[in-house]
Amino acid sequence: MRELDVKQAAALLKEQDHILILTHMSPDGDTLGSAYALQRGLLQLGKQVKVLCGDKIPEKYDYMMRDLAAADFEPAYVVSVDVADKKLLGATYEAEFGDKVDLCIDHHRSNTGYAKNLCLEECAATCELIFLALKELNVSFDAVIADCLYTGLSTDTGCFRYANVTPRTHKIAAELLEYGAQAAEINRVMFETKTKAYIRLETMALEQMQMYANDKCAFILLSQAMFQESGCSDADCDGISSLPRKIEGVLVGVTVREKADGSYKVSLRTHAPVDASEICQKMGGGGHARAAGCTLDSKNYEAEKEKLIKLIEAEINAI
Amino acid sequence: MRELDVKQAAALLKEQDHILILTHMSPDGDTLGSAYALQRGLLQLGKQVKVLCGDKIPEKYDYMMRDLAAADFEPAYVVSVDVADKKLLGATYEAEFGDKVDLCIDHHRSNTGYAKNLCLEECAATCELIFLALKELNVSFDAVIADCLYTGLSTDTGCFRYANVTPRTHKIAAELLEYGAQAAEINRVMFETKTKAYIRLETMALEQMQMYANDKCAFILLSQAMFQESGCSDADCDGISSLPRKIEGVLVGVTVREKADGSYKVSLRTHAPVDASEICQKMGGGGHARAAGCTLDSKNYEAEKEKLIKLIEAEINAI
Repeated sequence: MRELDVKQAAALLKEQDHILILTHMSPDGDTLGSAYALQRGLLQLGKQVKVLCGDKIPEKYDYMMRDLAAADFEPAYVVSVDVADKKLLGATYEAEFGDKVDLCIDHHRSNTGYAKNLCLEECAATCELIFLALKELNVSFDAVIADCLYTGLSTDTGCFRYANVTPRTHKIAAELLEYGAQAAEINRVMFETKTKAYIRLETMALEQMQMYANDKCAFILLSQAMFQESGCSDADCDGISSLPRKIEGVLVGVTVREKADGSYKVSLRTHAPVDASEICQKMGGGGHARAAGCTLDSKNYEAEKEKLIKLIEAEINAI
Repeated sequence: MRELDVKQAAALLKEQDHILILTHMSPDGDTLGSAYALQRGLLQLGKQVKVLCGDKIPEKYDYMMRDLAAADFEPAYVVSVDVADKKLLGATYEAEFGDKVDLCIDHHRSNTGYAKNLCLEECAATCELIFLALKELNVSFDAVIADCLYTGLSTDTGCFRYANVTPRTHKIAAELLEYGAQAAEINRVMFETKTKAYIRLETMALEQMQMYANDKCAFILLSQAMFQESGCSDADCDGISSLPRKIEGVLVGVTVREKADGSYKVSLRTHAPVDASEICQKMGGGGHARAAGCTLDSKNYEAEKEKLIKLIEAEINAI
């Protein structure tokens, strides 16, 4: 039995004193909010805790780390948060910890079951699960924990916009505001700020957008040349992924980013009833029903792109 | 004493049997959601109720009116919802009802006090007040009332993004989801759908954007020529108002729309500490601290624009 409920996961954490928390690569608000809120909660209980991420953490998340002292100890227990697949730890940490994760707290349907799991798909964000676990551990919620958890709720729901939001999501958000979460400021940083470079990239992307499946699929490629010309970095262009799906009549929005190493990372966003996760799983990736991802083989980009478009067309034609 | 609390306002409504509800011109999700939720609640109590709006209501709000029978009766009591100034009723209804509004339910600080007021600024949306009033009236909340009220909460807060959101806003949203509000679908229509014409207009607007006050003020003019060239109508371009404030470093975003009659309508959005309402009041308009509006005299557009920019620069320099 590898599936745990919140009470069981909390009990496991309670027993441990030297805990390492791992996030996924290309870290976002939910994996980081989960990690740092959990760290702070466990520190309160007198444990030694550290967080590791396989990628550089963007500066905009610095507020999650305020007042944290550096920790130096040998971890005896490894927890991953919001990590659906051990591959997403990044090559280094996958090699070091991939088979040693003791507890995985996640909300992805595509979770591969690489560890003991507290994985509830009906949670809009892994931060919802961390909230419940910290309640179970009788942690006292301060403003920083509230900021961390609010960030995960807000970023994984498009600021309470998407179909994954439940009454519980809003109730937790209300409680986090009461604990002092700086919601408006967090949302301003996560959603309201566009650099001029980002706007240049967005304008280029829209000009070169391609339409497939009778205009029901919109496809954007962000090439290395476009990153260079616009001055916008790959780490700062997350918002563009939500753009193609916003066009009237579009059911599937595809955003492909050419990474510096020549690989292609696909972000797929859909409207019901198209299942993004199903399409991406057929390409070796995974995710949620409305937002999923995969990578394309850089040596066969055109063939891989065609394969992806054909899968999308088949899904749209099957409606 | 013209200021009422929720209990008093509910008591006044309870006494009446032939009620007319008025919304503001250029109707938005909050004024319409308030009007139709209040109408449905009062209909449940056996009253005759109708809603009037000084402008054509955009089709995207049709779901608020589902299953409503036409009403034909002589109103004996006039309620305005989300209408800060009787001028905002539009010329026809201002002439007919401007001095006959019996009860005004609103949340604008700039409310002119033209009627007995239930006006709580600390509500993110007038729909919050309608929710509280309907609770007070023991109305049973069905899915349509929930849709109406959710629409107001969501549209007046940028989908729970802005500083006006309180724990109560989230708690009400949670309850409305429990009553069956189709939140994701409403948000998709209100926030996630951009027509191709809208994207053309947005691209033009960004290309022609002007910067003032050391790049702390971004200014967009949407001319009649741009509406014609893009194919996007004035009624469908609301989203653009939030665009200039999103640019990094910008404290004041100005969007000016040239109307078909040659007048200029200004929408001002600010980041703290700049007070949008204060600036717009000096131009004869009003609104909220972070979002306000005014009009510019079409005969003196350039001089009026200069006056507005000077007021903005003065506010920014005073920080």
